[in-house]
Amino acid sequence: MDHRPLPKLSSRVDRLQASTIRQILSVIDRPGMISFAGGLPSPDSFPDLSHVDLPASVLQYGPSEGEAALREQISSEMNAIGLRCSADQVLVLSGSQQGIDLVAKLFIDSGTTVAVETPTYLAALQVFRFFGARFTQLDPREAKAGLDADELPALAYAIPSFQNPTGHCYDAAERAALAHACDTLGVPLFEDDPYRDLAYDDCERTPVCARLERAPWIYQGSFSKTLAPGLRLGFMVASPELVPLLLRLKQAADLHSNRVSQHLVLAQLRSPGRAERMARVVDGYRRKRDRFAEALQRHFADLATWETPPGGLFFWLDLVAPLDTRDLLSEAIERGVAFMPGELFYADKAPAHGTMRLNFSHADEAAIERGLGMLADLVRARIGSVALTSINA
Amino acid sequence: MDHRPLPKLSSRVDRLQASTIRQILSVIDRPGMISFAGGLPSPDSFPDLSHVDLPASVLQYGPSEGEAALREQISSEMNAIGLRCSADQVLVLSGSQQGIDLVAKLFIDSGTTVAVETPTYLAALQVFRFFGARFTQLDPREAKAGLDADELPALAYAIPSFQNPTGHCYDAAERAALAHACDTLGVPLFEDDPYRDLAYDDCERTPVCARLERAPWIYQGSFSKTLAPGLRLGFMVASPELVPLLLRLKQAADLHSNRVSQHLVLAQLRSPGRAERMARVVDGYRRKRDRFAEALQRHFADLATWETPPGGLFFWLDLVAPLDTRDLLSEAIERGVAFMPGELFYADKAPAHGTMRLNFSHADEAAIERGLGMLADLVRARIGSVALTSINA
Repeated sequence: MDHRPLPKLSSRVDRLQASTIRQILSVIDRPGMISFAGGLPSPDSFPDLSHVDLPASVLQYGPSEGEAALREQISSEMNAIGLRCSADQVLVLSGSQQGIDLVAKLFIDSGTTVAVETPTYLAALQVFRFFGARFTQLDPREAKAGLDADELPALAYAIPSFQNPTGHCYDAAERAALAHACDTLGVPLFEDDPYRDLAYDDCERTPVCARLERAPWIYQGSFSKTLAPGLRLGFMVASPELVPLLLRLKQAADLHSNRVSQHLVLAQLRSPGRAERMARVVDGYRRKRDRFAEALQRHFADLATWETPPGGLFFWLDLVAPLDTRDLLSEAIERGVAFMPGELFYADKAPAHGTMRLNFSHADEAAIERGLGMLADLVRARIGSVALTSINA
Repeated sequence: MDHRPLPKLSSRVDRLQASTIRQILSVIDRPGMISFAGGLPSPDSFPDLSHVDLPASVLQYGPSEGEAALREQISSEMNAIGLRCSADQVLVLSGSQQGIDLVAKLFIDSGTTVAVETPTYLAALQVFRFFGARFTQLDPREAKAGLDADELPALAYAIPSFQNPTGHCYDAAERAALAHACDTLGVPLFEDDPYRDLAYDDCERTPVCARLERAPWIYQGSFSKTLAPGLRLGFMVASPELVPLLLRLKQAADLHSNRVSQHLVLAQLRSPGRAERMARVVDGYRRKRDRFAEALQRHFADLATWETPPGGLFFWLDLVAPLDTRDLLSEAIERGVAFMPGELFYADKAPAHGTMRLNFSHADEAAIERGLGMLADLVRARIGSVALTSINA
């Protein structure tokens, strides 16, 4: 490739960071790689889609809002979990990453304030930042959930159930506090809920959006964790006044979502074996989470603290000593283990002590044991040398 | 639905127009509707995908840039049509509408100048306008293709082969002129080429991007017209310095494109029956175009002028009298005929005489005859009353 100078680009391109997610997705297929990095579901959780019959209708252009029958299905499932909505409020998405793009386009100008949890989903931070967001901190345990600091945010983004990256699940009081703050202050809430069906312990999971009385809201879900990510399908439900705008943004983004996937997903949602399959998936993940917790205890007890996540796909480690774990990543990958440096999940400054996000759903048990062992060795070596550096400084 | 006030939104939302495409896509499924509106391929052009076998690998997350084998295939097809590139320069897209969104994000700030053909693809205008573009006119028959007027554009957007909406195919001189102007002035070229394989008459079709020596470029193609739009798959090839940025934008937009579609498209591209199938599709469309031309002659000879398009999916009509055909659309749809008002395809002021874009690929011959008859009646009645209004004024 030649190295020609770049032409004049939009000012937002200066805020376009290289994506660690993408870099990691590009190495996970490498044979033998043990990946604790992505939120990759276990392949044995996938439904059997090896032989499928597609109606010819899925081949033509379709409606931007999604197939009517799928929207009806999603709407009835949302009402069943407490989120009152009609099918008209449902938009089918090409994965929930697309929802983040659409919401950013809708709310964020250069300098717009967005309230986010600390830490939070890094690909949301990247998109919000790309559109020019400044960040403030959302915390349901603070007064007004932290939303009334300095300047009222134009949007609050939260992942209340099995948060990414921390695994935290808001209890009823935290949910009520966030809803009340949004209602009182008139701050629109964007609730991202891809993990809600991966619940291993009893947790309050009613959407925070279901508790809102006045604030505008957008709730989104994903079929990537409960069915299969390669289908790239998610959905969004929004308060009525936002729906026409989000629909136009969706149309401008890709006309409409893949109809083959919409057909396959609807068939799976209606499948009589669905509940049984999900119970099996959840049981499998719970067992994996427990084995992972035991392996962590063996390898990381002296290196980090953590809580066992009640759902979702990740353990979040707080290391016991200062360390920027980004400096660890390439060496880890070289040794065949991928993980997610915690620093990437902070809107502003990451804490001095190192943090790591470890996915427990993808690797098998033997790989987990070997991978955590290697990772602990790396951390131990670095923490040793960091301590030494501090002493010498 | 309630009618709550909107919260504070991004400034670009003021430029978010209701999409006529979307409104039309939402009525085409109505039983009995004769649609000359969308660029809908004929359902009998679709490959048989009624039974498909999917490998389990398509269910997992995949690379943002697209499947390696598909990128290789596309790259070799691009080289075969004269566009020198490596597979590293190929990005798989979730339909070519996504390519327009990514390119707009890359180049367009509020106030950025974009050169476009007059008229041009309305969904491109919508996206460019949404990001804040101002427009100047690109015309390969003018000196410097019109690009050196007033202020140099940050981007030139062109559909050189079977242009949407006019059906015009640039000849070799026009292609050379646009390439030379971009090279001389350093204007990046975004070449949109969804119709190139739907060629009914002999035409020069070598991509203009293939003639560039210095200017940055992005070329995009689509599988919607040659395979099936419901698969929502397209691709982009770009000059090397732009690829890493476009890749990050792609990742931020939807992580990666649907892997089921990528699998199905690759299988179709490699299918031994592919050339024969395409020849059959093109023959069928050519016959339909010729029948449509005859029907137009019967119904519109006194109402409009047009040229028979050498490829693509549309006839473009210049009416013989002033008429804003947008005023005709709802009445036409009420009577069961949909078309595309030409006014929507102009970046700035549309000409006073009415214009219409008519798709000839979707309706069957009987529907074409009936639909054009009804449409001509409507136009004739309006042109009569417009003439009357002019006389009375």
